Parts: sequence; structure tokens; C-alpha cells
Amino acid sequence: MIIVKLGGSVISNKNKPFSFNENVVENLAEEISQFYPEKKFLVVHGGGSFGHPLAKKYELRKGLNEERKVGFSYTHEAMLELNKKIINIFLEKNLPAFSVSPSSIFLIEKGEIVEGWLKIIEELLDKDFIPVLFGDVAIAKDKGIDILSGDQIISFLANKMKPEKVIFLMDVDGIYTKSPEEKDAELIEVIDEKLKPEGKAGVYDVTGGIKNKIEQALKMPCQVYFINGMIKGNLTKAIKGEKIGTRKKL
Amino acid sequence: MIIVKLGGSVISNKNKPFSFNENVVENLAEEISQFYPEKKFLVVHGGGSFGHPLAKKYELRKGLNEERKVGFSYTHEAMLELNKKIINIFLEKNLPAFSVSPSSIFLIEKGEIVEGWLKIIEELLDKDFIPVLFGDVAIAKDKGIDILSGDQIISFLANKMKPEKVIFLMDVDGIYTKSPEEKDAELIEVIDEKLKPEGKAGVYDVTGGIKNKIEQALKMPCQVYFINGMIKGNLTKAIKGEKIGTRKKL
Repeated sequence: MIIVKLGGSVISNKNKPFSFNENVVENLAEEISQFYPEKKFLVVHGGGSFGHPLAKKYELRKGLNEERKVGFSYTHEAMLELNKKIINIFLEKNLPAFSVSPSSIFLIEKGEIVEGWLKIIEELLDKDFIPVLFGDVAIAKDKGIDILSGDQIISFLANKMKPEKVIFLMDVDGIYTKSPEEKDAELIEVIDEKLKPEGKAGVYDVTGGIKNKIEQALKMPCQVYFINGMIKGNLTKAIKGEKIGTRKKL
Repeated sequence: MIIVKLGGSVISNKNKPFSFNENVVENLAEEISQFYPEKKFLVVHGGGSFGHPLAKKYELRKGLNEERKVGFSYTHEAMLELNKKIINIFLEKNLPAFSVSPSSIFLIEKGEIVEGWLKIIEELLDKDFIPVLFGDVAIAKDKGIDILSGDQIISFLANKMKPEKVIFLMDVDGIYTKSPEEKDAELIEVIDEKLKPEGKAGVYDVTGGIKNKIEQALKMPCQVYFINGMIKGNLTKAIKGEKIGTRKKL
């Protein structure tokens, strides 16, 4: 089984609320269809410009209070809206994608999953469905309510379900030594323990998201790719195990 | 906690695909808002004219095969569409309804739930959210895939969660001795063991659905009402425990 993460910046334009990159998702579904059903897939997508503006507007990260309850639900509904767009593109290509609501099956604490019910995901995979999960709101043991990122879902699933590989689709070519916009930025082809934050090699990371991505990737019991999902053919290369983007040293 | 079933024929016109009785749902939400948050609520709605036409078109009841996989997913998406309409009406009235996908948390066999994960529903209720579930598609141990009715969900939840009462909203005044359209049809105000199919009293039931409803109601560890959800004020009476529609002999 291969886990594919459709990054929020791949499927939508983060600067434009409720925008959806239909063509990009169509291309990705097309590439997946070349390997299905020989290979099993599980898809997780980010919130992109559907989830983030609402999570921010309602300040969901601050936890439960009376005013945020309604916003918690609106944010989930917005994510279902984005999810439906992706599901429909897969179904049109005769790929049996099926929506699984993370907020229905995961309980979190400090942003990480502490309890989950994977029975339905396992059953869906067993029957050659393609479960599609997404960054979602979630009930949290610490804050009452919180946000659950697609990356956290993948970390949890990778460790529990032992996939063949995990492929993160981003809007840049992989992980860089500097901001990809800078001239002398270099793509890091292979990540290993040396790239951990306590290591010596430099990694471009403004928000700390990349650092966390690398840490999580190194912990996963499988190969991990970080590739540019906007370029046709990249996903195919990663599925085949070819040299593309940033991958883990095995 | 009170479980309210919004029957498919109450929230939509079963003869008109994708129709939605917005005003009826608004009135019901308004009545619930008079008792919230003093009382906790859990809502389950039927498929109405969203779920049934698709379930029929794709012949989902016949179980898993390659062609039906896509239909299985389309049917779930149609149910989410109906669910969203109901959620939005509740949210507009500041009732924190939250969608829980039955297909993500229930595994069924012979149309009945044999395994379920209620953790999130319990957490939502504990935090005074109003979980909203719905008749859905489901993974089935016997047929691979199948349909899970809202009534089955209620039977399972009533027995596991011991609600204060269950209120079924229908498009007729309750359970009748004959077809409600016949002149001498009489409303049965109180149902008890004598009305079981092996009993003597007559109950109007074309499809067997009513027989099953009565059997299930008699098994629930709480009061059960069958009332007309199209008439404003009825839900309020049932919540208050007044005489309305058909109720169980306690």
C-alpha cells in the first residue's frame, strides 16, 4: 500500500480562499490509475485554502469554547467540500476513492493522534477501495477541540499500517538547503539522520514544518518521497522508485 | 440525551430526487433550540430523496462488485450533501451540530451494526455538541458493501448509550391500524408487546418497515415516540413527554 499526500498548496492556491487546482488533481489521479489496482493506495490531502482560512477565523487552535463550536463544524464542512472535489475526480476516472472522516475516527492530544479506529480503512483497502482522508478538525483530550493535520494522520497511519512507501506531493521539487527562491538553493536528494535539527547540515525551513516533516519521515518504517506534485510524471517516478525529489536514505 | 430521527420523508420529498424540506428542518431545529443545552441531543436522519435513488441505481443492496464500488462512494457523497444542508440549518441557529460519518465508524452484517466506534460521539455529547449521523453506505462482513439505515443506527445507539428517549419524526401522525389514508384508520396511541407481529392487534404496514420499527422500539431501554414531524410543536410535546403520536407503554 502506498500513501499519497496531496499537499494543500498542490491542490489549491493557499492565497485564494476556496480555490481548487482541478487540473493538477486530474493529472495525479490519472497517474495513480496507471498503477491501480495492482498497487493499493491511500490518499490524505491537506486543508489548502478551504480549511486554513476557517481554522484561523474561528481560532480553533485555541481550543474549546462556546463560540468556537459552530466554527469547528463549519471548518469540517469546508474540508468535506474540498474532499468531495477530489473524490469526484477519482470516481470519474473509475478509481473507487471513498471519503473517511478523520474527525469521526481519531482522538488527538497536543495535535497528535492518541486513539484511532482504523477498522474501516483496513476493510476499504482490503476491498481495493482508495480511502481518502484529510486534514480535519478533531476532538482533543487536552484542548477539547483542535486541528489535526494531514501530516499527523500520515505519521500515525505509516507507523500502524506499514505501507510500502509514503509520497508527499509539494509545490516545490523537494527539500532544499535554502529557500527554493534563492539562487544557490540546492535540492537535498537524500535525507538521513544528519539532517535532523540537531545535525549539522542546513535545511531551509521557515515555519518549522519542514523540520517536522523530516523528523516524521525518518521515523516511518518505509521509504518516503518529497516530490513536486505540480509536475506531471513525478508521482509515477516515485511510485516506480526512481530518483526524483527528496527521498530517504534506506 | 435525546435521540431524534429525522425521517427521510420528513426532510425531503421521496418522489422528487434531491429535494429538501428546508422549512420543516428549520422548524425542528428551532424546537430543539428551545431545549438546548439543558438537554443533550443526537440527530440521525434518513436518506430521503438523496440516498435512495442512488442506492437503487447502483443496486448497492446486492453487495460488492467492481461496478458498484464507484456507486458506493457516490451514494455516500450524496448523503453528505443532504447532511450538510441539515448541519447548516442547525449552525445558523447556533446549535453546534457536527457531522459524524456512519460509514467511517460502523461495520455491519445483514444490515445490522456488528462493530462500531462510539468514542467520538461520546466526546461530542460530553462537550454539548449535537452529533448528526445519517443513513449511509457501509462496509459489510457478509456482502462486502451494503446500506445502513438510520433506524438501525438508532437501535444500536439506543442500546449502547441509554438515551432518555428516542423520537421518530414521520410524515404521518404515528402508527395506524390501517393505511392512514383510509377513513376508519385509527392512530395507535400506545404500543406494547401485543402489537408485535405475533400478537393479535392489527398494524398498518405495507413494506414491513413499521413492524420492524415497533419491534426495535419495544427493545429500546427508553421511551420511544413516533410523531408527525411536519406539524410544528409536535417535537416539543414529545421532548416534554406529553401525549402525542404513538408512544411506548412504559
